[in-house]
Amino acid sequence: MAYFEGIDKINYEGPESKNPLAFKYYNPEEVVMGKTMKEQCRFAMSYWHTLTYMGGDPFGVGTMFRPWDNQATAMDIAKERVHVAFEFMEKMQIPFFCFHDRDIAPEGKDLAETFANLDEIVVVIKEEMKRTGIKCLWGTTNAFGNPRFVHGAGTSCNATVFAYAAAQIKKAMEITKDLGGENYVFWGGREGYETLLNTDTGLELDNLARLMRMAVEYAKEIGFTGQFLIEPKPKEPTKHQYDFDTATVLAFLRKYDLQDYFKMNIEANHATLAQHTFQHELNQCRINGVLGSVDANQGDPMLGWDTDQFPTNVYDTTLAMYEILLAGGLTKGGLNFDSKVRRGSFEESDLFYSYIAGMDTFARGLKVAAKLIEDKVFINFIENRYASYKEGIGKDIVEGKVGFKELEAYALNNGITPNVSGRQELLESILNQYIMETK
Amino acid sequence: MAYFEGIDKINYEGPESKNPLAFKYYNPEEVVMGKTMKEQCRFAMSYWHTLTYMGGDPFGVGTMFRPWDNQATAMDIAKERVHVAFEFMEKMQIPFFCFHDRDIAPEGKDLAETFANLDEIVVVIKEEMKRTGIKCLWGTTNAFGNPRFVHGAGTSCNATVFAYAAAQIKKAMEITKDLGGENYVFWGGREGYETLLNTDTGLELDNLARLMRMAVEYAKEIGFTGQFLIEPKPKEPTKHQYDFDTATVLAFLRKYDLQDYFKMNIEANHATLAQHTFQHELNQCRINGVLGSVDANQGDPMLGWDTDQFPTNVYDTTLAMYEILLAGGLTKGGLNFDSKVRRGSFEESDLFYSYIAGMDTFARGLKVAAKLIEDKVFINFIENRYASYKEGIGKDIVEGKVGFKELEAYALNNGITPNVSGRQELLESILNQYIMETK
Amino acid sequence: MAYFEGIDKINYEGPESKNPLAFKYYNPEEVVMGKTMKEQCRFAMSYWHTLTYMGGDPFGVGTMFRPWDNQATAMDIAKERVHVAFEFMEKMQIPFFCFHDRDIAPEGKDLAETFANLDEIVVVIKEEMKRTGIKCLWGTTNAFGNPRFVHGAGTSCNATVFAYAAAQIKKAMEITKDLGGENYVFWGGREGYETLLNTDTGLELDNLARLMRMAVEYAKEIGFTGQFLIEPKPKEPTKHQYDFDTATVLAFLRKYDLQDYFKMNIEANHATLAQHTFQHELNQCRINGVLGSVDANQGDPMLGWDTDQFPTNVYDTTLAMYEILLAGGLTKGGLNFDSKVRRGSFEESDLFYSYIAGMDTFARGLKVAAKLIEDKVFINFIENRYASYKEGIGKDIVEGKVGFKELEAYALNNGITPNVSGRQELLESILNQYIMETK
Amino acid sequence: MAYFEGIDKINYEGPESKNPLAFKYYNPEEVVMGKTMKEQCRFAMSYWHTLTYMGGDPFGVGTMFRPWDNQATAMDIAKERVHVAFEFMEKMQIPFFCFHDRDIAPEGKDLAETFANLDEIVVVIKEEMKRTGIKCLWGTTNAFGNPRFVHGAGTSCNATVFAYAAAQIKKAMEITKDLGGENYVFWGGREGYETLLNTDTGLELDNLARLMRMAVEYAKEIGFTGQFLIEPKPKEPTKHQYDFDTATVLAFLRKYDLQDYFKMNIEANHATLAQHTFQHELNQCRINGVLGSVDANQGDPMLGWDTDQFPTNVYDTTLAMYEILLAGGLTKGGLNFDSKVRRGSFEESDLFYSYIAGMDTFARGLKVAAKLIEDKVFINFIENRYASYKEGIGKDIVEGKVGFKELEAYALNNGITPNVSGRQELLESILNQYIMETK
Ligand SMILES: [Co+2]
Ligand SMILES: [Co+2]
Ligand SMILES: [Co+2]
Ligand SMILES: [Co+2]
Ligand SMILES: [Co+2]
Ligand SMILES: [Co+2]
Ligand SMILES: [Co+2]
Ligand SMILES: [Co+2]
Repeated sequence: MAYFEGIDKINYEGPESKNPLAFKYYNPEEVVMGKTMKEQCRFAMSYWHTLTYMGGDPFGVGTMFRPWDNQATAMDIAKERVHVAFEFMEKMQIPFFCFHDRDIAPEGKDLAETFANLDEIVVVIKEEMKRTGIKCLWGTTNAFGNPRFVHGAGTSCNATVFAYAAAQIKKAMEITKDLGGENYVFWGGREGYETLLNTDTGLELDNLARLMRMAVEYAKEIGFTGQFLIEPKPKEPTKHQYDFDTATVLAFLRKYDLQDYFKMNIEANHATLAQHTFQHELNQCRINGVLGSVDANQGDPMLGWDTDQFPTNVYDTTLAMYEILLAGGLTKGGLNFDSKVRRGSFEESDLFYSYIAGMDTFARGLKVAAKLIEDKVFINFIENRYASYKEGIGKDIVEGKVGFKELEAYALNNGITPNVSGRQELLESILNQYIMETK
Repeated sequence: MAYFEGIDKINYEGPESKNPLAFKYYNPEEVVMGKTMKEQCRFAMSYWHTLTYMGGDPFGVGTMFRPWDNQATAMDIAKERVHVAFEFMEKMQIPFFCFHDRDIAPEGKDLAETFANLDEIVVVIKEEMKRTGIKCLWGTTNAFGNPRFVHGAGTSCNATVFAYAAAQIKKAMEITKDLGGENYVFWGGREGYETLLNTDTGLELDNLARLMRMAVEYAKEIGFTGQFLIEPKPKEPTKHQYDFDTATVLAFLRKYDLQDYFKMNIEANHATLAQHTFQHELNQCRINGVLGSVDANQGDPMLGWDTDQFPTNVYDTTLAMYEILLAGGLTKGGLNFDSKVRRGSFEESDLFYSYIAGMDTFARGLKVAAKLIEDKVFINFIENRYASYKEGIGKDIVEGKVGFKELEAYALNNGITPNVSGRQELLESILNQYIMETK
Repeated sequence: MAYFEGIDKINYEGPESKNPLAFKYYNPEEVVMGKTMKEQCRFAMSYWHTLTYMGGDPFGVGTMFRPWDNQATAMDIAKERVHVAFEFMEKMQIPFFCFHDRDIAPEGKDLAETFANLDEIVVVIKEEMKRTGIKCLWGTTNAFGNPRFVHGAGTSCNATVFAYAAAQIKKAMEITKDLGGENYVFWGGREGYETLLNTDTGLELDNLARLMRMAVEYAKEIGFTGQFLIEPKPKEPTKHQYDFDTATVLAFLRKYDLQDYFKMNIEANHATLAQHTFQHELNQCRINGVLGSVDANQGDPMLGWDTDQFPTNVYDTTLAMYEILLAGGLTKGGLNFDSKVRRGSFEESDLFYSYIAGMDTFARGLKVAAKLIEDKVFINFIENRYASYKEGIGKDIVEGKVGFKELEAYALNNGITPNVSGRQELLESILNQYIMETK
Repeated sequence: MAYFEGIDKINYEGPESKNPLAFKYYNPEEVVMGKTMKEQCRFAMSYWHTLTYMGGDPFGVGTMFRPWDNQATAMDIAKERVHVAFEFMEKMQIPFFCFHDRDIAPEGKDLAETFANLDEIVVVIKEEMKRTGIKCLWGTTNAFGNPRFVHGAGTSCNATVFAYAAAQIKKAMEITKDLGGENYVFWGGREGYETLLNTDTGLELDNLARLMRMAVEYAKEIGFTGQFLIEPKPKEPTKHQYDFDTATVLAFLRKYDLQDYFKMNIEANHATLAQHTFQHELNQCRINGVLGSVDANQGDPMLGWDTDQFPTNVYDTTLAMYEILLAGGLTKGGLNFDSKVRRGSFEESDLFYSYIAGMDTFARGLKVAAKLIEDKVFINFIENRYASYKEGIGKDIVEGKVGFKELEAYALNNGITPNVSGRQELLESILNQYIMETK
């Protein structure tokens, strides 16, 4: 425990605590809706934003103070970061981590050396996992940062790049399996287009489906039983990302008969970039049975890019946890903080303050959501609102017993039953009361 | 020909003409890619924006000068408008029209009287169709304007409203068939939600699918062979419309096994509200084989609502016609001006200036697009760009002959072939040259 | 008290109350930072959204159930609405109202009759004001709804429309004075442009300044001592509104030497349409000494138009009240609910639920903001953050004692003192804790 | 001429040319409105995007193929780049360049060495300027990229950073003067805030004004007669940039009595990020007499960040040149391509294709705009539209002869003269015809 001197394990001290290095709402062993908060939240550290984000942006270089990166070689840095990561997770009481292949080990002079680098680091990670009991939530491939992916990976116009990406995914899947990862994520960082003038979208999407199919087949072959997840995003870095949102991904999966093998990894900031609320995307996953996991962060509604801020808005986390609980909880998934400290929050302690902020905000959201469900606040309202489908002509509609002719006859004879207010403002008031008053 | 005095038939006078009441680019009988421009464009008048839009907006009442509306009864106005509509189309050389049930006839005291009103007007329309040879491109139902649809039509929480909507669609389909309409459109004006707090999205979408299924079955029953079209829109009037964009609709259709019965009616302004370009949505239709028809208009990229402006941007119309031509043309569809004159363009003549603007802009786009295709400007570039999938490892990928293990072996042994520039700026330059220089 | 049967006066019952027709947070006589909540909040009813909004939108007609509007003449309706308005305010414990001239009385056959209509209604309003003690926060002119203002009012291309608008404002100012209104608001509903192709922005802005100057002079002449306010909005109904945001209005006022006579009326939804937070606009008012009054509502960050929703987001109201309190409170201004019930909230009771929602949300925000200020949470952080300007080279900079040469010498000799983290995430955590835990 | 082998000087070949390395519209010596195109356009190369942009973005590292950067030291690279830059400008026939201090020379171990590095490179630049006749349009300071500016430069909370920035600006102004730069630009890359929770906006803006004042005074002292320019941008990199748009900057300048010393440098992409059209911002500059210079690029209306694309939209360049010509031309300013090749356009030749695209697009816009002005297309329309202010009551309004009382009397007696259509669609049609048909 050598890296974060002066910062001990973060403990729950309750909502009145003034200690900035304590949880106010996240009480890991407290039981909410039949499980501990730890089990409900399944928090995960994102390896990339936590270990490798240096604070650069398109207008300036890195700002972060990360003394452990002062090592002789890239591999030495990579090893040191493993120890930093696990010390951080231990102190934060975070039970999972998520990673890209390139987060944990540098590329070598060729692909073979890159694989060797990975193998070397995986050994260190496994030691730390064993020592701490911390687990791997999911692994993924970074097939977007290197210039070779300038025109895409699975959707590259260059077939040799497709092959390279496939090789990289194969290795990342193997590592994820080796680390006991419960899921494997596809975020297509360069799978999109910059201009339709030079793009064959038909071929690119066919090829993307081919890549997904190969992944499914290879998983079977090696016995990888983790859940495959696709993470939608509408744009950035490309002008138009193919995996725009949940609906777009569902259309893709259903077109290529892949729907049985993939669920969604929903990121809050990606939802809002697509002009959906975070809750909307989770709701779509719920009603389609494809809620996999969550990238917990938030965007700035006034900004048009992916800010990946730590989630601190209790409305968002309440409504997110509400959908998650209704969907039966996170099961294999988790709440992975795909969140980065602000460029101006460059001190080591900011990592702690930020994760505390995110974990407390989700913990608060969990408790409020659970109480909303236990009290059946919205559930009863909705059940009553749609009651007309439980009997009479409504029941006939739902059960497929009537068609246009019967319904026309009904309408001509009966007209409509008066509508009732949707009560949006009252419901919003009640939500506020639950957010403020839930103990 | 009594309504638009002083305005004769609009004729083609060529690009040098200074006559504001002449076409500069739309030359109906000129052949472009093997068909006349008239056949390629299949222009349609929107009954609603042209006859019933009075210039109201959320901050002010109507401004339009429409002397023909000065009639004693709503039915008298409705009849007069039929004559205005056909005089307008004749003078504009527009071969098609599109309509909602409520555009052509007012609601009566009950549904039966409403149906009778429709029947009475349909007779007048048919006379005018016979007289002029003008045809019906598509019909649709307005199941969003009346307060009964405040919570939706097919997605209403009130089952009797669902029944009423079904009856209304049944009638509108019958009328469309009677008028020889080549398509029937579904735009779900209130099919969406205002807040998830009071909404059962699962039931609502199931019900929407039930409604679509009933329409399919009723069409079979009555022998209506027109194409069913769904018109996507992401928001407005509701906070979130279920038919968000093409991808969302495809996901819906594929989920409920309805994909064989529906194509898309793509509106430019709806595309941009969903953060897609018009071309993007048409491209998605093309590669999924679901291009049905087009609502020709444009939005203001600085504004966040559906402005339904007449299309005057040649870039947009060129790239739209490019996708349409590549898709094999409009076939049963058309270019329907779901466009309204600006509130400040309230004189009768503005209707003519605006349709001329829209028709000329699409005509210009058609000619440029045709030349781009004939010269294979982008086609050849793209073919060359993806050539690696025509042989070797690329061909193996496309043909499904290789999986992760073979591709890993390839990548380890061969690395990647260098990437080549995507040449976006050069292609944009060439597009400009075609737009300016096409004769 | 005949209109809202079954709904009595809304009372404070505290945060645990389950009574939907009670305040949970707004306790009118409770003292917060030295004043009662009633004095701090100065809530106002907006006459337009409350009495005249019928639930129409661009895709459908009105939905509202307003039985009192069932009267023989427009003037009868107008009178009835006065009684409804005051009963509503009494029951809601709202001490102020705001109005446009056209909200309270219908236009007559000419301007003289319109003035007479106004005079007749003003008598009724004054009676009700006397009876109830309810006051007028501000008056304004509706110079945007009538077709005569299609091209603007003070910025119309038609000089006779400018004259008409001036006459209308003169009358509205007189009425506002007569009713003891504490402010007079200018919201330029059509003061903007649709296209630069037909617009002389220079002349239009000069004319707008002329109109403002005339208002200033007429106020002096009649002894109207209310505060003039301008309400910024970036767009809608026009493509580009001249009073885009606070900064734009300040540039205008300073250009035409009008800055001594106008403050701002900040609307939350207008702020966000301009891509500013509500807090940002209030902050800009504070540091420029132009905070006048507030139009309390909220927009939907996913939608691009003015939704004018009742404010229910406690983050927004907390940060708004924070700026207001730091600015010395609302003084002559107030919190006017420029908010309309959702189209689906069409019952009479929804008016109550919605105002309760808005008042409780601001009350909660007030209490949290007051505690943040009393505990100097952000104040101390900021004071410390900028401490370098209190001494040494920083003090010299602030006091104007140094120029480039001295600063270059300093920089060459001293370099920079290390920067310190901005602690954004920690501050957001603390804000959350205050929002949840303030009693 | 050693760097761009195989690419000769780019010449005008006319609109029919199929040579990708030729101008189609930019004919430098062709006279348009009394000046050569070269004099009207005053094109400038941006040193940063052309020489130092490597293709990195937030999700990937650089892609650019720039063999000349293969040098031993940072200073060697810097020198080589000077030669590349001038060879490029010569071949492109670009008469000006613009630069940040940090574009041309690397930082040294301390500020003194940094200054020495600059001095050493300036010598090389001056030689090249002398050799080629190419001039400096403007210089500026990069006070945003280095971590020391993490919290701002002139608005830093750290007074020693303010001092450092002042020293840096002083030096950059001296260099700009030394190179004969005609302007000096301030773009406040980090002058904004990330969160109001930690920001004293009042002090920061006061300090920013102090910095501007010092610059004005130092310019007088050293006899720098170039024009000071401020470049507005609403956001990015900070959440909220203080120089949001032209209006905001004007409010700032007028508040601090700096309006006599600054004009605007308008960037197209910054305009659209602020929800203004490019034309709008130039129009605002024109009517306020503050049009300084232009950063010629374009954004993607579907994306929410600064894409800095090469301008290829002829509508935008036509309307931009229209405002510029009406404002009397660029005088000391120019059209600086603050544009970067797409990340996928990584070959050397793409630099040429991209600049050709931008120059041709502006050249075309210039010609169309000139013809629109010569034919008085919009000028006459507007003059006629506002004719009512040339006589009668309108003239009295403009000349300040009437107030509210006289206007009320006028309105009561006269009512309004009927409004006339604004003819937006017709004007858009005519614009199209000019864009297509101008020879
Ligand atoms: Co993510
Ligand atoms: Co993200
Ligand atoms: Co449409
Ligand atoms: Co539309
Ligand atoms: Co308002
Ligand atoms: Co509003
Ligand atoms: Co710029
Ligand atoms: Co830019």
